[in-house]
Amino acid sequence: MNENLKRNFIDIEPYVAGEQPKKADFIKLNANENPYPPSPKCKEALESLEYGKLRKYPDASGRILREVLGKYYGFSEDEVFVGNGSDDVLALSFRAFFNSGKKILFPDITYSFYPVWCKLMNIPFETVNVNDKFEINPEMYSDCGGVVIPNPNAPTSLSMGEKEIRKVIENNKDSIVIIDEAYVDFSEYTAIDLVHEYDNLLVTQTMSKSRSLAGMRIGMAFGQKHLISVLSSVRDSFNSYPLDTAAQALAIASVEDDEYFKNTVQKIKNTRDENIEKLKSLGFTVLRSSTNFIFCTHEKYKAKDIMEYLKTKDIYVRYFNKTRIDNYLRITVGTDDEMEMLINALEGLIK
Amino acid sequence: MNENLKRNFIDIEPYVAGEQPKKADFIKLNANENPYPPSPKCKEALESLEYGKLRKYPDASGRILREVLGKYYGFSEDEVFVGNGSDDVLALSFRAFFNSGKKILFPDITYSFYPVWCKLMNIPFETVNVNDKFEINPEMYSDCGGVVIPNPNAPTSLSMGEKEIRKVIENNKDSIVIIDEAYVDFSEYTAIDLVHEYDNLLVTQTMSKSRSLAGMRIGMAFGQKHLISVLSSVRDSFNSYPLDTAAQALAIASVEDDEYFKNTVQKIKNTRDENIEKLKSLGFTVLRSSTNFIFCTHEKYKAKDIMEYLKTKDIYVRYFNKTRIDNYLRITVGTDDEMEMLINALEGLIK
Repeated sequence: MNENLKRNFIDIEPYVAGEQPKKADFIKLNANENPYPPSPKCKEALESLEYGKLRKYPDASGRILREVLGKYYGFSEDEVFVGNGSDDVLALSFRAFFNSGKKILFPDITYSFYPVWCKLMNIPFETVNVNDKFEINPEMYSDCGGVVIPNPNAPTSLSMGEKEIRKVIENNKDSIVIIDEAYVDFSEYTAIDLVHEYDNLLVTQTMSKSRSLAGMRIGMAFGQKHLISVLSSVRDSFNSYPLDTAAQALAIASVEDDEYFKNTVQKIKNTRDENIEKLKSLGFTVLRSSTNFIFCTHEKYKAKDIMEYLKTKDIYVRYFNKTRIDNYLRITVGTDDEMEMLINALEGLIK
Repeated sequence: MNENLKRNFIDIEPYVAGEQPKKADFIKLNANENPYPPSPKCKEALESLEYGKLRKYPDASGRILREVLGKYYGFSEDEVFVGNGSDDVLALSFRAFFNSGKKILFPDITYSFYPVWCKLMNIPFETVNVNDKFEINPEMYSDCGGVVIPNPNAPTSLSMGEKEIRKVIENNKDSIVIIDEAYVDFSEYTAIDLVHEYDNLLVTQTMSKSRSLAGMRIGMAFGQKHLISVLSSVRDSFNSYPLDTAAQALAIASVEDDEYFKNTVQKIKNTRDENIEKLKSLGFTVLRSSTNFIFCTHEKYKAKDIMEYLKTKDIYVRYFNKTRIDNYLRITVGTDDEMEMLINALEGLIK
């Protein structure tokens, strides 16, 4: 390659793909995927998709999906935004709302994409330390160009309640507060209703976890009209058709099967809570989880060693080689059978 | 809304949605969609999609699709990139490759998204006038921070050959030349083979037109490894999973049915060429089309009036209220029946 070409390239780290197990048969508890399939209504939606219609562009703004989501959560369609997974929705929101030139704030231990987006878009930022128990202190978020709070937080699995979330929003009335609720359906509290009350609040969610649709890339945001309008303009300045026809149909079907959704979420919460107890009795310290994963550490065994050991048993969990959390594991809640195999494997290590 | 919030918003034009016909039954020749359905193999791919698998994240880089495309076009998988429509691929390419600080160049009459992306990403640009016949002069593209040439160009429908494209690439050895081949399958010449020869060439294509998959949002780029690697890093810094599982399956199925693809393209080219003659005999001046649309003007009737008249007949064609082309129409090539109805309607106006 002509070396002069490099002056044209963006200055970012070359991407190194994460490890993918070579075997076909293994227990995958490392990506916070839902162990259960999407609603059977999604299967029907897929089967009844008129494939001939795929020659046409999809509905650019996902109008029907926004209507259905609006109806479900109590919004008009112009208070709802949909995109190609919540990563797309969040990245567009960063672009749309963090332009004051002042630093935005988010926790030091959180979703790893936030600083990446800031660097990509030249958004100044500062991270705010969570305390020793990994808790977010809402008082520490003020006087800034915007706030991103994941609630529940990942990978800590901890959540804040209404009082704390209100504090963050009220302390930042002149800037936008994004509450990233990727895991909220496994939690007790959602800030979604506060959208009606606060003009500076954007709540983002995803269908990848609780609705078992990670493969279809569906994310959404809820905010007052003035925010959704700016967000839509950014979308239309980048890629007008982020959500394909199949994804829109499956997303609609998922929202329309509330019983399946609630049952699946409840099953995962039950499995989670039972297995937290089992892990505790194996000597793990486990954080109180409001998500579909468990964040834990062991006094006697190093997290990295446990992760490597489990891999030899064809069980994949997530380990982060990162300050403050490098002795913790993030374990996705699988089916009861998968979790039993996990516990059995751990019993083989921890005698 | 608290007016102070506005300082946080990105400064772009609020989006105004294009006109959508209210009726269900009309002839839509305004979006360059393919009038024929995708390959029947896409139907099979959709039907045999394991819906249970949708709970898992898709293959982030679309590896199998890249392999299949690579095999078809003569590349290794690391010379192929796929994204959420060619808009996504192009926007990411702008971000990846136009960072020298020097102005990038593209034609004044071309795809309207290029200046929008430049503004969104703070990329300096200058447009280069096409001549009175709407032709691009390759000699005018040099000494710049990069070049984007759509070949064939839209909405002019004109294409350049190998000699002209080589000239642009060779005149810009220190910057990246993007050849946007959205319509190339309806044309005679693709620059895709030049990728092996030039380290500064990126060729982008889409499955939205020739492969009838506009509804599934599949775009691709071909370039030498060092370019695809930078492009992948940008993708992974923005949204790691742009292409959902269904889109990947349908794209693979489409590439694997070459006979259907070639037949469909040939049918459209035949319909196009026949109807260009019919339009000429109605007094239209028609540009030599290398695309699935026809760009034309009439001596006696204003383009805007013709467009409005056709709308009363439930036929939608594209009109651009834009300097230099505001007396032209862009008419998508539909089925033979649709084109017959168009010609009949025009005969009613032009006696």
